[in-house]
Amino acid sequence: MEIKSYLKSKRQIVEKALQKYMLPASEPFKEHIEAMHYSLFAGGKRIRPILCLAAAASVNNDPEIESTLLPVACALECIHTYSLIHDDLPSMDNDDLRRGKATSHTLFGEAGALLAGDSLLTWAFDLLSQTGNTSLPPEKRVAIINVIARAAGPMGMVGGQTMDIANENREFPIEILQTIHRNKTGALITGSIQAGAIGAGASTNKIEKLVIYGNKIGLSFQIVDDLLNATATTQQLGKAAGSDTTRGKATYPAFFGIEETRRQALQAVEDAKSALTDFDYKADPLRALADYIYTRSN
Amino acid sequence: MEIKSYLKSKRQIVEKALQKYMLPASEPFKEHIEAMHYSLFAGGKRIRPILCLAAAASVNNDPEIESTLLPVACALECIHTYSLIHDDLPSMDNDDLRRGKATSHTLFGEAGALLAGDSLLTWAFDLLSQTGNTSLPPEKRVAIINVIARAAGPMGMVGGQTMDIANENREFPIEILQTIHRNKTGALITGSIQAGAIGAGASTNKIEKLVIYGNKIGLSFQIVDDLLNATATTQQLGKAAGSDTTRGKATYPAFFGIEETRRQALQAVEDAKSALTDFDYKADPLRALADYIYTRSN
Repeated sequence: MEIKSYLKSKRQIVEKALQKYMLPASEPFKEHIEAMHYSLFAGGKRIRPILCLAAAASVNNDPEIESTLLPVACALECIHTYSLIHDDLPSMDNDDLRRGKATSHTLFGEAGALLAGDSLLTWAFDLLSQTGNTSLPPEKRVAIINVIARAAGPMGMVGGQTMDIANENREFPIEILQTIHRNKTGALITGSIQAGAIGAGASTNKIEKLVIYGNKIGLSFQIVDDLLNATATTQQLGKAAGSDTTRGKATYPAFFGIEETRRQALQAVEDAKSALTDFDYKADPLRALADYIYTRSN
Repeated sequence: MEIKSYLKSKRQIVEKALQKYMLPASEPFKEHIEAMHYSLFAGGKRIRPILCLAAAASVNNDPEIESTLLPVACALECIHTYSLIHDDLPSMDNDDLRRGKATSHTLFGEAGALLAGDSLLTWAFDLLSQTGNTSLPPEKRVAIINVIARAAGPMGMVGGQTMDIANENREFPIEILQTIHRNKTGALITGSIQAGAIGAGASTNKIEKLVIYGNKIGLSFQIVDDLLNATATTQQLGKAAGSDTTRGKATYPAFFGIEETRRQALQAVEDAKSALTDFDYKADPLRALADYIYTRSN
């Protein structure tokens, strides 16, 4: 399993699909839609769409399954992008740099960025429900919409974000940090995998295993984010390095030190792969993605 | 048709449904969900949910149709509430008062209000897709989700809001003001009516007529908002009176004067009722709602 070429090829497929399924920037709201495009096409890793497609492929080798799920994959990236735009706002993390580029509000103003985020979130649900963009039957669509809304909402990603903001510059136990990570980052990662699995017709048992896999790689992903924030340079990251410390955010390295944090990230990756024991070769991309999440450098 | 008692009884039904379908404020995100509740239960008129239910009843006299559509009605109110929270933010209209109460960001901070809005929008789509909260079949659910997402998104409500913000303190032609009104206010009003009609199994022809009705009452609604902003007191409105002038916002009265503006609002109401010519007594609430929108005082 050559993960780099796998990621490259899947990224190209996702980029092309985003171009296809994204609203074109036309009047009367051209500038607004351009602001949506700016962040959506700012060079994301497309991890969530790829996880969605890889989860689908792990249970279903129908060659059509990927194209059937591309609108779902694109919707996930729209939601992830909206969350980054809102996180970067002055009233939130106040970041000027993201993926090596100026953040939305530095270019479009606070109101422009806020509304670009609102529209990306809403457009995600438009894509998930548009007539004719997929052969997914309505009952699967509704189930996927619910999994994604639940993962992205008050008991998932946004909930985690509120707790992250509320606990800046405060001492709190490791359990709070784990709740933040599980929701702010983990929920949409697991939701992406669940959405792909539902779309591909996975059994309840397989979905349960994939949820464990998702929770574990989500944890690993966020621990590695903490590590990179503490150890990499701004140039390597494409966003402000060391910002967690500056902002008084609790992180895994602050609790456990660098070495023990690395060990825990690796353990989470091993746990993720163990959850896939009953899966055959079709889950090899998921296994390789788990390793990649641990070894990535930005 | 006694519109006041009709509105009162429907409002009670909607309030009860909102209590039922809203996420309870429980840990670990209790404070966040309480911020969602604060704005959702701050005394809204519930016009959009009521229009959704009235549109459904205008084409279908099954006594079950109302309860079937209550989750949809509640989702519409969640979306409307999120839009008000974001509109009131300091980077947008910077309003301290809404419905006679402190706005979300004055109580929960900018980040808290922003995220409460994000969660209300996402929760709307959760409600629209939850298993078991309605007997609406999946194909109708997907169609309703798409109508609502389209109305609320970049080519609807949010698009209109971007144009409103972009044109503050600027001279522009009446066509721009009409585009702002049609999208910022009109799109979700028409979307609410369409959602109800689809849920009730209206024919394509009936849906087309209801869309015309919706567009016309949406226009009248916004023109009356402009009039009230110019002529009523802050106490009557429950929000800052005269703020359009202070902010350099174009309005119907600024273009046409008070009298001609009143005439146009009334004309829109008449056009709305004309669109319902082919509808029987079951559309009487819609007819009365059109009159109410013209005569309301806040």
